[in-house]
Amino acid sequence: MSQVESSRAASLEGEAKQPVTGAYDLAIDAMGGDHAPESVLDGLELAAERHPKARFLLVGDESRLTPLLAKRARAAKACALRHAPDVVSGDMKPTAALRMRQSSMRVAIDAVAAGEAAGVVSAGNTGALMALGKIVVKTLPEIDRPALAAIGPSARGDVVLLDLGANIACDARNLVEFAVMGDAFARAVLGLPNPSIGLMNVGSEELKGDERVRLAADMLKVSPLAANFHGFVEGHDITSGTVDVVVTDGFTGNVALKTGEGALKLVAGLLKQVFTSSLMAKLGYLLAKPALDRLREWMDPRRYNGAVLIGLNGLLVKSHGGTDALGFAHAVDVAMDMVTHRVNDRIREGLAAMPSRNPAAPASLTTE
Amino acid sequence: MSQVESSRAASLEGEAKQPVTGAYDLAIDAMGGDHAPESVLDGLELAAERHPKARFLLVGDESRLTPLLAKRARAAKACALRHAPDVVSGDMKPTAALRMRQSSMRVAIDAVAAGEAAGVVSAGNTGALMALGKIVVKTLPEIDRPALAAIGPSARGDVVLLDLGANIACDARNLVEFAVMGDAFARAVLGLPNPSIGLMNVGSEELKGDERVRLAADMLKVSPLAANFHGFVEGHDITSGTVDVVVTDGFTGNVALKTGEGALKLVAGLLKQVFTSSLMAKLGYLLAKPALDRLREWMDPRRYNGAVLIGLNGLLVKSHGGTDALGFAHAVDVAMDMVTHRVNDRIREGLAAMPSRNPAAPASLTTE
Repeated sequence: MSQVESSRAASLEGEAKQPVTGAYDLAIDAMGGDHAPESVLDGLELAAERHPKARFLLVGDESRLTPLLAKRARAAKACALRHAPDVVSGDMKPTAALRMRQSSMRVAIDAVAAGEAAGVVSAGNTGALMALGKIVVKTLPEIDRPALAAIGPSARGDVVLLDLGANIACDARNLVEFAVMGDAFARAVLGLPNPSIGLMNVGSEELKGDERVRLAADMLKVSPLAANFHGFVEGHDITSGTVDVVVTDGFTGNVALKTGEGALKLVAGLLKQVFTSSLMAKLGYLLAKPALDRLREWMDPRRYNGAVLIGLNGLLVKSHGGTDALGFAHAVDVAMDMVTHRVNDRIREGLAAMPSRNPAAPASLTTE
Repeated sequence: MSQVESSRAASLEGEAKQPVTGAYDLAIDAMGGDHAPESVLDGLELAAERHPKARFLLVGDESRLTPLLAKRARAAKACALRHAPDVVSGDMKPTAALRMRQSSMRVAIDAVAAGEAAGVVSAGNTGALMALGKIVVKTLPEIDRPALAAIGPSARGDVVLLDLGANIACDARNLVEFAVMGDAFARAVLGLPNPSIGLMNVGSEELKGDERVRLAADMLKVSPLAANFHGFVEGHDITSGTVDVVVTDGFTGNVALKTGEGALKLVAGLLKQVFTSSLMAKLGYLLAKPALDRLREWMDPRRYNGAVLIGLNGLLVKSHGGTDALGFAHAVDVAMDMVTHRVNDRIREGLAAMPSRNPAAPASLTTE
């Protein structure tokens, strides 16, 4: 049975032990994404099983959502429904999305800004979500700019990469703050007690790169993160797993992420051609299939779904617009990990300990 | 029989039809690279077969090179030997390499600067090669900065990527000049009559990115390249083959190249694990081996060996330091393509036709 807004009191009871201040762990934008709302609700059905104590505020068109929830017992139990009549379309400009006060995305984000939920998950328009997040939820007072972070595969376990495009131009201070946020992210989502951190550059030698990355490296070397700071890393270090967290500006991070994804897609396409190119190859594929399936599962982009706009007074998790239930459930996993581990408290502690907070720090630390 | 310096007159005869001004097509740094000079000479043996009319000036330690040449009939016939006693080591700083006047790299580059050879191929220290190139061979008077360019695989044929790290910071003018150079490169090395050009950004919409890429796009849209200018591309467009030439700054290009290579290496390693994980998988591999071998051959990094520092008064081709004879021969192929197609003349023509050459162009076109 689905619960509408009036069931909020009951939901408060059920999650008394959850470390959140509001009534809900997460607000869910039910209408964002290519296959919404069905894929979102199927994802919540999976997520409710994985997080039995979690409480979700499901935001969207009530008349469409009520019958869909009725068919999904676990999701119905975990969710309270809040009506929002409008939808931010995939091609809507952020400025237009900001003017739309009754969209599912906006109402969900409003719930985070009001302290009702610790975070939001949306598979909707990325630009709109980031703009709404920054303007409605607002940036943590301790930091200059939030960053988009996500995890990806490496030869030695998962790796956190940030910024993935929230900030096109970044100065040394931004990069240092990204390192603090990446550290908190890796502790919460990857469960690493001491994640190692690398700063992206065009070479590993100290003299490589521009003034900005060299200054950021100098700042990290005298920071509380110094023991885990590996120094400069290069593009190939992302997938080789040299470090747990790779820090870079939003332009470079966005290009690196998409280039890596593109390279994997190229090989996947070529392998498909290879294994259908002859009868022998097809037979070979069938014999190797169980092993190849493990590889496919390991590389499955759904396993890495859920980019986090980190550094706001609440958590914003962006699910891929084209993902299915499994992918959406993973984005919810990422959000729940961050809520449970109080990532924002960790970030605030990390930033408070940074020497750049010292008012005596030279002004050049914040120049590009 | 190998020819020493005195054989130069004879060599001039043999290449009368080659479109170069000097006595040699290429000067070859025989001592650069992890497996030099053997891999270099084996590479030249292959190259001499592919380019029967080519004349090479082989520069390095005469006492080591003479017996090696004696065992390689084709290379010996194509090469004249010039002695250089010193070697630029892999970890030498560019400033130190600049002070070393008798290194094989320096003497080879001096031959280009003197007009004896149209270009140089070296598998030695990248930083030293680029510094020597810029200072000794010098940048074309028409352009601001040279760029490092190379080709890579895509789903729709090879793609040219530049800059790969010669310039960490680039302004709009540099990006436009890279487009002109990439166009000339693609015509010469890929043999494309009308290569399409994309400008790297974090999204394909016109408003994405920073002022620099938007300004470069505006300049390209009113240039003679406009008909072939595709607009903005993203990281995944490199391997999907959306365009033939991808233009970006040296920081982003370097990270993108290495990230893509890293992703391919990750999959190659995982596939190896898959095909040795069980008896069935091993059997499957054997059946699919002919098809997989074609994939391996297609992805072979040696096929893409040879990054060109383009925009100098001569061609500088950097072969990967760890490559073998096949890879070195490919770097020679790239250099020969550029010499034969007079890439520098094409670049000069392309730049002369750019509207930014117009003195009435606003000063802002050259700001970052």
